[in-house]
Amino acid sequence: MSLLSMLFGNKPKTAAVAKERLQLIIAHERDGASAVNFLPQLQRELIEVISKYVKVNPDDIRVSLEKQDRYEVLEVKIELPEKG
Amino acid sequence: MSLLSMLFGNKPKTAAVAKERLQLIIAHERDGASAVNFLPQLQRELIEVISKYVKVNPDDIRVSLEKQDRYEVLEVKIELPEKG
Repeated sequence: MSLLSMLFGNKPKTAAVAKERLQLIIAHERDGASAVNFLPQLQRELIEVISKYVKVNPDDIRVSLEKQDRYEVLEVKIELPEKG
Repeated sequence: MSLLSMLFGNKPKTAAVAKERLQLIIAHERDGASAVNFLPQLQRELIEVISKYVKVNPDDIRVSLEKQDRYEVLEVKIELPEKG
């Protein structure tokens, strides 16, 4: 279950940290020849789709893009609003 | 850079393994009260969006859903067709 702890970290399970979170990771491995970068635009569309399922506050979205050699990893973290 | 190696593994970089791959991970952390499971439907829509950007052969999509306590992780691996 190491991917899970990688994604969310090993946090203590207390009521204080009981938040609902959604994390989206898109990893693209490509050969050197292909240089098309569609991830940022893809990301916008994916967030639109996610917004249909859960209430998303744009302020609660953290996006990071990481590049290394043939890899490009886009990570989107969304804190979902607590239900009243 | 451990997330990268986690996602794709540490494979030798030879021409023989030079494939283009796209990997999508959606991780949902929720409190016990919320029992809505929208990930499978969300997954279908996300693949539709991705198909607009890259040619995806349905046979080349591998989906796995992993559940544990308050976590649900949907993983979609797509092998992209080689360009002729």
